[in-house]
Amino acid sequence: MHHRAPFTVTTLGTGAALPARGRYPTAQLLQVSGGTYLIDCGEGTQERLRAIGFNFQRISDIFISHLHGDHFLGLMGLISSMHLMGRQQPLTIHGPKELQEIIGVQLRASATYLRYPLHMKAVPHASGVVLMEDEHVVVTTLALLHRIPCTGFVFRERPGPLRLRPDRVHSIPKFRRNAVKSGEDLNLGEAELIPNAELTLPPLPPRAYAYCSDTAYAPSLIPYLRGVDLLYHEATFTVAMAARAKETMHSTAEQAALIARDAAVGRLLLGHFSSRYKSADVLLTEARPVFPNTELSYEGGVFHIG
Amino acid sequence: MHHRAPFTVTTLGTGAALPARGRYPTAQLLQVSGGTYLIDCGEGTQERLRAIGFNFQRISDIFISHLHGDHFLGLMGLISSMHLMGRQQPLTIHGPKELQEIIGVQLRASATYLRYPLHMKAVPHASGVVLMEDEHVVVTTLALLHRIPCTGFVFRERPGPLRLRPDRVHSIPKFRRNAVKSGEDLNLGEAELIPNAELTLPPLPPRAYAYCSDTAYAPSLIPYLRGVDLLYHEATFTVAMAARAKETMHSTAEQAALIARDAAVGRLLLGHFSSRYKSADVLLTEARPVFPNTELSYEGGVFHIG
Repeated sequence: MHHRAPFTVTTLGTGAALPARGRYPTAQLLQVSGGTYLIDCGEGTQERLRAIGFNFQRISDIFISHLHGDHFLGLMGLISSMHLMGRQQPLTIHGPKELQEIIGVQLRASATYLRYPLHMKAVPHASGVVLMEDEHVVVTTLALLHRIPCTGFVFRERPGPLRLRPDRVHSIPKFRRNAVKSGEDLNLGEAELIPNAELTLPPLPPRAYAYCSDTAYAPSLIPYLRGVDLLYHEATFTVAMAARAKETMHSTAEQAALIARDAAVGRLLLGHFSSRYKSADVLLTEARPVFPNTELSYEGGVFHIG
Repeated sequence: MHHRAPFTVTTLGTGAALPARGRYPTAQLLQVSGGTYLIDCGEGTQERLRAIGFNFQRISDIFISHLHGDHFLGLMGLISSMHLMGRQQPLTIHGPKELQEIIGVQLRASATYLRYPLHMKAVPHASGVVLMEDEHVVVTTLALLHRIPCTGFVFRERPGPLRLRPDRVHSIPKFRRNAVKSGEDLNLGEAELIPNAELTLPPLPPRAYAYCSDTAYAPSLIPYLRGVDLLYHEATFTVAMAARAKETMHSTAEQAALIARDAAVGRLLLGHFSSRYKSADVLLTEARPVFPNTELSYEGGVFHIG
């Protein structure tokens, strides 16, 4: 009845620092209505995007959480291929401030003069800062806890229009419906003015996706995650490796589930699996007792929100 | 009879700037006796090495021809994986001087303190300069002609020992044979001294491999390529695209064959195929009339020398 625009996450890689066991490093494609965004960009991301048949020129913004190689080493290759394939529309990269130098020195060394405008925006290491707004989403930050500054992201869709009340929709002339959806009263003649509130229901609540790439257990994030529909949270280790998780500032699957439970999110998606685990099922098994609505990400997995 | 140590080139990627059609960017693994070297390192090279089951910790030296992304963007990931996998033995990277800054800024941004010594050696853009000598090979430079400084490499094996003459070998006591091979005369008692020259033949001629990654037609290279056993030469375009080759400072397959013919090399190996060619056979077809002993490189192809 109220058909919603697609809001999907495609997980291109689920490995941790050391690529192995057929896992690729982290990258996610986010599609919200007509908006297309890339979150992190490990080595080989352009190849992963080709493998799923996705035209990466549609990406308008790339969000890089931090500068460990498994989260950004595919960026230069992607920027370069976009150029070689004739891109002209702008690309904005949101990431740690050092990224500007890293990209700059490589463009200079290769004497590459991009045919498209490349905008670099430094991401602060703080929570709740609005990074970007376009017609599809508002993106805010999450201050993750990692060995180097690492920032997560919340993608919240723009509120949709008012919804026409099913019991009143037939009384509204078709050519007036968009106006009513945008909040106008309905004027049907001199005497007859129907207030908008009698004809409409509020918009559906905006859907939200939160991305916590590399982080120790961080309850400080909970206020910023409350009620998101889908939370991606790293789950590098099992509880048996909790000491190693703490030392390397990663999370156990159980810790990811505690965050999901305490923030009352809709669903939890796990990723960033240590190469020591042949199958990630052991991580799922540890998360579900705490937060049943948990899933494993996988290479090329598509997760629909709402 | 004279069993020679292996001298092999494994071509890990044969694509040009834009990865496509199942081709990967340039990287080659060179194995000479016990020596193991990597030549160029496009994005995803570590994954290619895993795919062929090769333990990349054995690589002692990496040679980077130039700083176009398809020749070096896999380097940071490989350096990082070597570190994460516990490497302790030194690694030497020979490449354009800007590479030191490119690697340095990324190591700093990721707060990575390598557990192994990483030596960076700047490669001059000149021909005939000795870059590196170890017990297996001597590596010299080739000044290629490209849009940015680009250096090729000649790997020439160390001369082997003298060979024992088959008709005399039985007269040499076994425990003296290595001494004779190293040039000593054979003293069989007070009166009997057999000069080395009567017992030995000269070493087999050292085998050589030359690598010309990205270059316009460059006859100036011929004196440095003369007589190499295997010449790898880029062949980005067909003759129909000769103008484009000239403009982008690449070669046609025919030009690669002309170099091979005029330098009287043993065999020619083509690579760096433009993504416009679904099959590289068209390039082979244009090269063979000029230089019949031509082959196409392919992903994972192993080429034995000598």
